[in-house]
Amino acid sequence: MRMVDLIEKKRNGHELNKAEIDFIIEGYTKGDLPDYQLSAFAMAIYFQGMTQEERVNLTQAMVESGDQIDLSKIEGIKVDKHSTGGVGDTTTLVLGPLVAAVDVPVAKMSGRGLGHTGGTIDKLEAVPGFHVEITNEEFIRLVNTNKIAVIGQSGDLTPADKKLYALRDVTATVDSIPLIASSIMSKKIAAGADAICLDVKTGNGAFMKKLEDAEELAKAMVEIGKGVGRNTKAIISDMSQPLGFAVGNALEVKEAIDTLKGEGPEDLTELCLTLGSHMVVLAEKASSLDEARAMLQEVIKNGKALESFKTFLSAQGGDASVADDPSKLPDAAHKIEVPAKEDGYISEIVAEKIGVAAMKLGAGRATKESEIDLAVGIMLNKKVGDSVKKGDSLVTIHSNSEDVQEVMDIVYDSYSTVAEKVEAPTLIYKEIH
Amino acid sequence: MRMVDLIEKKRNGHELNKAEIDFIIEGYTKGDLPDYQLSAFAMAIYFQGMTQEERVNLTQAMVESGDQIDLSKIEGIKVDKHSTGGVGDTTTLVLGPLVAAVDVPVAKMSGRGLGHTGGTIDKLEAVPGFHVEITNEEFIRLVNTNKIAVIGQSGDLTPADKKLYALRDVTATVDSIPLIASSIMSKKIAAGADAICLDVKTGNGAFMKKLEDAEELAKAMVEIGKGVGRNTKAIISDMSQPLGFAVGNALEVKEAIDTLKGEGPEDLTELCLTLGSHMVVLAEKASSLDEARAMLQEVIKNGKALESFKTFLSAQGGDASVADDPSKLPDAAHKIEVPAKEDGYISEIVAEKIGVAAMKLGAGRATKESEIDLAVGIMLNKKVGDSVKKGDSLVTIHSNSEDVQEVMDIVYDSYSTVAEKVEAPTLIYKEIH
Repeated sequence: MRMVDLIEKKRNGHELNKAEIDFIIEGYTKGDLPDYQLSAFAMAIYFQGMTQEERVNLTQAMVESGDQIDLSKIEGIKVDKHSTGGVGDTTTLVLGPLVAAVDVPVAKMSGRGLGHTGGTIDKLEAVPGFHVEITNEEFIRLVNTNKIAVIGQSGDLTPADKKLYALRDVTATVDSIPLIASSIMSKKIAAGADAICLDVKTGNGAFMKKLEDAEELAKAMVEIGKGVGRNTKAIISDMSQPLGFAVGNALEVKEAIDTLKGEGPEDLTELCLTLGSHMVVLAEKASSLDEARAMLQEVIKNGKALESFKTFLSAQGGDASVADDPSKLPDAAHKIEVPAKEDGYISEIVAEKIGVAAMKLGAGRATKESEIDLAVGIMLNKKVGDSVKKGDSLVTIHSNSEDVQEVMDIVYDSYSTVAEKVEAPTLIYKEIH
Repeated sequence: MRMVDLIEKKRNGHELNKAEIDFIIEGYTKGDLPDYQLSAFAMAIYFQGMTQEERVNLTQAMVESGDQIDLSKIEGIKVDKHSTGGVGDTTTLVLGPLVAAVDVPVAKMSGRGLGHTGGTIDKLEAVPGFHVEITNEEFIRLVNTNKIAVIGQSGDLTPADKKLYALRDVTATVDSIPLIASSIMSKKIAAGADAICLDVKTGNGAFMKKLEDAEELAKAMVEIGKGVGRNTKAIISDMSQPLGFAVGNALEVKEAIDTLKGEGPEDLTELCLTLGSHMVVLAEKASSLDEARAMLQEVIKNGKALESFKTFLSAQGGDASVADDPSKLPDAAHKIEVPAKEDGYISEIVAEKIGVAAMKLGAGRATKESEIDLAVGIMLNKKVGDSVKKGDSLVTIHSNSEDVQEVMDIVYDSYSTVAEKVEAPTLIYKEIH
């Protein structure tokens, strides 16, 4: 088999079989095939796409390129949730304790990553004492006991995907549905999930700006999941404005606590109930979404969801009393209001810009080496559809520096106000089974 | 400027400007841009094409990536001929002396290359004593004196094209009209031609199997030539069967001598008169193709064309008496006839297979290190349209080995015979101005 022939086959729009895809992914992982052939191949896929069978085979080949996590010692169906990413997305912090409270096992492997705010681990580290440096045995024991634990990424998962993603990033071959879908799914599958619940974001703050692209990606991922024998469901949710009110690490932990108490922002709460219901059904702890939702609402109401969060934090060295007294979380030195300049209705909040503003404050990482300031961030006081009077605070900037002029300018730039009343955007567009 | 953005721009179907193309070609030549970005870029061009302006700029950038030959000390308009290649293409050997005999300067830089038979230099070296190791000064002096000389390739011409071609070859990005056209034209332009006459072959023995593809390539090259200020014309000629009768090095020299005497194969003679007429007009030695053709027919008739060949050979150490006594050329030990198996009319001779048969005899190079046997080859005794009786010789195999069974099998495989009368194929399909 020669790689040049396989590139040509794909270039000419033909389907590659499993042996051919395995040859490519194995060869690339081992270093037998050079970057310049893979980049041409990726560009051919950009133009010619991949069939469902090719996508499944590509994903499977990437899973098999490295270590695979064995979660078989954890009782029950392990459901993993994945979000395609957005601004102020606090759902993971809420969903873990929430579904654990109804006996769905949450065995989360998480990373730090780059972005507007930190990763799940960074956020959790805002809780004094909390750490993810636990052994695999401890991790499994904790999930079996408490139904929830988080561990830092370890092992060499999907090296083929890492290598291919880095190459795609510099060769303008990122925006390809089959390549995006197989990249995401290979990581989830290698991490050992039995079932997968996907939150595909759409809107200006999301990777997929257009609903139809988000839908295509969601379908592609669901098909791959089913193709490799992992039950997979997806919802498509709005990221035309930031989710919830908080954008920042400690701020999002505080917001998660509020939500687990039933006092969180409406959109975040609804999204968590929707995703959570799917997870509960996927884990076979309820037979319908309605039943699942009722179970989740019940544990929020009776305090079990918050209790689950506290148990989880304590078990990994964290000070669980933050759940009752969030003032123990890191707090920024300055809180600066950003007053509205005119009366009207908020018609737009460009999520991406709010993310950039949070990053400028120090909430996120620009490079792997950047230090994160866990205390800083932005609290939205107005969201799309809200009425506003001149002088009302649009957002509160939480900063450790007094000079926030640049951040303020970005905030003003992200908000649009109009005279006529505006509807809040749809939160959940679709469910893909 | 970032290469990834330029790849994306092309991928999305937008036009790159001159500065962007210069950035890419300069960066790649210097080694600042990696192969993996150029291969993705080439694949994007495969799908999105290039505008005429982009093609001109790409060609110019490749010309400027290395040395450029200065032929300004040679009097007159230097016209170069280029063929896209085929089987048994003896035109260069004929055309050089032929147009030189009517005062068109032929300053030919030539190589050895890979293929079914040797390059022009290999063929000429079948003439005892002939060599191309002459200085640039001697080369220029000879062209000014005799109107014709051939020198081996020297200098570092179009290194960008060499590097890019090698990359395209292993990344399934060869078959792209803009990339093929700019590759060919950059080499011709860097070699110093004032005007260029192109022979684009079509048919199963050519790179462009289909007439419409050949036409597209011819148009692309003519537009590039004009775009960089070099008058360029192209003809599209048949390569559905080998040209002339001879496929082999010394055999083609002998055929060239016959043709210069006016005793050559009909198709080869006609093609040389057509191409030669264009060259004479491009060199401004005649004002119409008819006038040019009459001049060329005259020098064939009066012996000046053959005289020009003899002068050329002598000037570069060759034994010019071969022109009068071709038996002085290398001669194979065995001449083996391949008899027809049935009566009928020849309907097809797969040129590519005849080429492979010649290669098996040792007439061509499979790798750069291969030694060529100048004596061996194949003489076609029947061409498409000819009637044949069982037992007639289809071809004569000139071999230095007695065992020619494999070659014979290939010859039989390449010939098709039918019962009904067949027309000879069209020789010249189109002229592109």
